[in-house]
Amino acid sequence: MKINGKAYKTIWFDKKKQCVKIIDQTLLPFKFKIVSLKNFNDVIKSIKKMQVRGAPLIGVTAAYGMYYASLLKDNLTFIKKKGNELKKTRPTAINLSWAVDRILKKISNIQFNFKEIILQECEKICLEDIAMCENIGNYGLEIIKKIQKRKLNTINILTHCNAGWLATIDWGTATAPIYKAFKNKIKIHIWVDETRPRNQGSSLTSFELSHEKIPHTIITDNTGGLLMQKGKVDLCIVGTDRVASNGDVANKIGTYLKALAAYDNKVPFYVALPSSTIDWKIINGKSIPIEERSPEELNILSGLDKNNKLTKIDIYPKKSKSLNLAFDITKAKYITGFITEKGICQANAKSLKDMFQ
Amino acid sequence: MKINGKAYKTIWFDKKKQCVKIIDQTLLPFKFKIVSLKNFNDVIKSIKKMQVRGAPLIGVTAAYGMYYASLLKDNLTFIKKKGNELKKTRPTAINLSWAVDRILKKISNIQFNFKEIILQECEKICLEDIAMCENIGNYGLEIIKKIQKRKLNTINILTHCNAGWLATIDWGTATAPIYKAFKNKIKIHIWVDETRPRNQGSSLTSFELSHEKIPHTIITDNTGGLLMQKGKVDLCIVGTDRVASNGDVANKIGTYLKALAAYDNKVPFYVALPSSTIDWKIINGKSIPIEERSPEELNILSGLDKNNKLTKIDIYPKKSKSLNLAFDITKAKYITGFITEKGICQANAKSLKDMFQ
Repeated sequence: MKINGKAYKTIWFDKKKQCVKIIDQTLLPFKFKIVSLKNFNDVIKSIKKMQVRGAPLIGVTAAYGMYYASLLKDNLTFIKKKGNELKKTRPTAINLSWAVDRILKKISNIQFNFKEIILQECEKICLEDIAMCENIGNYGLEIIKKIQKRKLNTINILTHCNAGWLATIDWGTATAPIYKAFKNKIKIHIWVDETRPRNQGSSLTSFELSHEKIPHTIITDNTGGLLMQKGKVDLCIVGTDRVASNGDVANKIGTYLKALAAYDNKVPFYVALPSSTIDWKIINGKSIPIEERSPEELNILSGLDKNNKLTKIDIYPKKSKSLNLAFDITKAKYITGFITEKGICQANAKSLKDMFQ
Repeated sequence: MKINGKAYKTIWFDKKKQCVKIIDQTLLPFKFKIVSLKNFNDVIKSIKKMQVRGAPLIGVTAAYGMYYASLLKDNLTFIKKKGNELKKTRPTAINLSWAVDRILKKISNIQFNFKEIILQECEKICLEDIAMCENIGNYGLEIIKKIQKRKLNTINILTHCNAGWLATIDWGTATAPIYKAFKNKIKIHIWVDETRPRNQGSSLTSFELSHEKIPHTIITDNTGGLLMQKGKVDLCIVGTDRVASNGDVANKIGTYLKALAAYDNKVPFYVALPSSTIDWKIINGKSIPIEERSPEELNILSGLDKNNKLTKIDIYPKKSKSLNLAFDITKAKYITGFITEKGICQANAKSLKDMFQ
């Protein structure tokens, strides 16, 4: 998708400089900066500090981490060890483990010179991710087209956090149907949940929609329920960090509350995901580990001061105690359906199996 | 309640200086400043700018506004006109109209020298509000005591926004049972919803609980649902700005989402209110006007910079479009009960009538 009219991906390998490049997402929306990840530690830091974030993008970044691991030591045991380090950077998104394991599987039968094969596999994962997201877009478009049949006015779509192209390589998961609808000239308007504490909605989703010129409005996380009561939401689409085999969904904290409101107001609530986000080993949402992050993410906010300088402030006293849980669980029963790269299925074990296994 | 160990009320008439004094709540938690409201316009501004906020406190402040109106012109028609101005300052809280109408009723049969009678009535409203809140505290305490019978550990109570003593004259509505429980040495811990966009939870509720030494933790508005899923919430208590005669409740935006989560997880969800908050003329929540406030309240945040200076920043670009709806509606069916000055009743027309009419 585009930033200032120019097409970008969120991550790419710069062959000339022989290094991985990313957009530093901690600086958006105020500063657009491309950063080089030059070694294994840069990759670890970029995931922990959320310079890259979003389940699919974390996965791809970890894959490139495996490439850097192979540069450190051309040894399978060593690369495996480094893979475990990568897996521990963030606990909730399954794509991280998935990408590391995929690389390990690819190199399990060779003895040395791992780097070329890993790099090829990274590029392959990137291309596959883009294709999967575009497929999600095409399948999601059909849902929007159905709503269009009974609604002549603008279709209002609510999304939480950023499951946009910035969370993947391109297209996004939750935003892919939005971009496809817009390209198909369907009149849409997006309600963008601010998404506290890190405000990925107001900082990232709003940023990418603006650069694609898609009409949208930022709302607090508290607002979606009232808008649904008032008939101002036709459809919710969110992403996910991990889907249990029964269809329960882990996603950014607050997703569950929107799913409840959608259910209460009969608004369709879809979760968009590539199949790499499904954790077949986990029976239900209760077993998904929930990441607890630093409480500072609640009270320290950054933005522009009156001199347009990027500044950090404490919005309440440092001594106040706070808790920062990053994800919540939405039970399958509140989900209308999954939009995947293979089509739309219901949020239950049978539907998932029928589609993917 | 206390600030820095000294007992305060949120509003009082300074007889020596012959003026109304308030705590400027827009400066909390960083600055504790007492401000004089010296005339009618000061009162209007203090309500609009939310130096005073919270349904019961807005009501009392408006009553003092009527006193200042009578100083401008000792004339009933004029005072009535000024009463209408006061009623228009904020649309959702019914207490505002209630207080103005109560003053007008009191002076309806006299011809001149209104100021003495109005001032007496203001003092009476203050004392009554304190007594009502203390009663709410005593009735609410019984609910907490019942939970204590089946739970030996700390009781976790979640509250949204600030329905604390800062929203009333003293004790608060939602916080009154909390203060009573704490004074009764019941082990409690409060989950304080941050309450975007104005953060009355992290700025005001946390401030007042800190000064009363009550254990509490600030969470984002997105978090309460997950905590309820995990069994970490025993009870929710919130305030309200207006109750329809069928028991539907208008309260700070986001209340509805917490009520849904409480219902889904079988957590008791109580609304605490003095009966002046009931709008007998309104059939259900759909007819309650929802205040739309400036979108700037979303993107402009104030806090302390690294030099401990109070600073304002834009957390996303000024050109981004946002919507700021201040209240939402929680249907009566999601409410376990009302805690009122006369006792606890169910959230339905019959129960409300039986208790108050």
